[in-house]
Amino acid sequence: MPDSPDLRPDRLACESHGVLEEVRLRGESLYKGVLLDIQRDWVRAPDGHEQSFEYTLHPGAAAIVPMLDDGRLVMERQWRYAMNRSFLEFPAGKLNAHEQPLVAAQRELAEETGYRARDWAVLGEVHPVIAYSTETIHLFMAKGLVAGPSAREQGECMELVMISPDDFFKAIYQGQVTDSKTLACALWLDRVLRNEWEVKWISQ
Amino acid sequence: MPDSPDLRPDRLACESHGVLEEVRLRGESLYKGVLLDIQRDWVRAPDGHEQSFEYTLHPGAAAIVPMLDDGRLVMERQWRYAMNRSFLEFPAGKLNAHEQPLVAAQRELAEETGYRARDWAVLGEVHPVIAYSTETIHLFMAKGLVAGPSAREQGECMELVMISPDDFFKAIYQGQVTDSKTLACALWLDRVLRNEWEVKWISQ
Repeated sequence: MPDSPDLRPDRLACESHGVLEEVRLRGESLYKGVLLDIQRDWVRAPDGHEQSFEYTLHPGAAAIVPMLDDGRLVMERQWRYAMNRSFLEFPAGKLNAHEQPLVAAQRELAEETGYRARDWAVLGEVHPVIAYSTETIHLFMAKGLVAGPSAREQGECMELVMISPDDFFKAIYQGQVTDSKTLACALWLDRVLRNEWEVKWISQ
Repeated sequence: MPDSPDLRPDRLACESHGVLEEVRLRGESLYKGVLLDIQRDWVRAPDGHEQSFEYTLHPGAAAIVPMLDDGRLVMERQWRYAMNRSFLEFPAGKLNAHEQPLVAAQRELAEETGYRARDWAVLGEVHPVIAYSTETIHLFMAKGLVAGPSAREQGECMELVMISPDDFFKAIYQGQVTDSKTLACALWLDRVLRNEWEVKWISQ
């Protein structure tokens, strides 16, 4: 059986649960497309059971909670082909090769919405699908927004939606917002707006 | 080029943003494995641009926020091979064929933790990865927990972690909880515990 290099994220230095570790035996690249880069590895579980795992390699992404001076949030309604419907979500996009998350966040916010922001804060990270992808999404909040030209890619069609935090949380409660990165952003936004979670603002 | 049936979720009756719709031209099955069922479709965007989309078909899943009578949450620390580390997460699992989400939630809670619950509430749904999967996760809260035997599958190794809501939210703030379904559950839990979002409890 062919073997390929281990391209998963590096082991965390703080990882102290080696007792649970599933050990890689060998692996192969199954398919490398435009969006997906599928790997299949053979793995030994802590109970000795051997099984295969399939997952997709992902370069990581950045998502932004952009807040206008009047407190409204800048969101996007975008068609999501796999789900056969549109979603209300925060601006986000994949990291380019060797791109820092904050740089990607600033680039994606400008490209997709046209807004540039004066003040940026790091929120947290979210791992959307730990069962079958290496994707990490870095979450940011942006204030001091100034409108400008957007630069969407061919085929990237969306509507901008300005919404108050109250209406945003009501939409979640009513089941109208279900995208995972947007819900992770919502938790951070909720706690930041209540002054319960402090974030550090950096002026650009 | 071969063509395959459209296996994406049915169109929502309420979907009113047809102007954004990306239209399916044709598609093919690329790979059908244990975890992944990869599809590639050719698609026309609203601006006329044609592109391919790769995504994985997923049967859906259920996740549970189990709360003990003393208020602590029942969580799992589990190795996630694709991420090369362990995660602290709420119990969850895939729906079996034709299985109702609540039935799957009850089955997964019992299999993974051994707990059976008297009271169940539907929270919301989360779509973990709208860019490349059809996965929907149905979120539930469970109370009135009674311990019993677990029935984990071969290779399914985990540690149970009992944690107070305060410590849980502190762990999120400190970056120690980043799994997307768990963060979506956290937003619901936070608002339910503050009595801001009402949920309907059903006794089993």
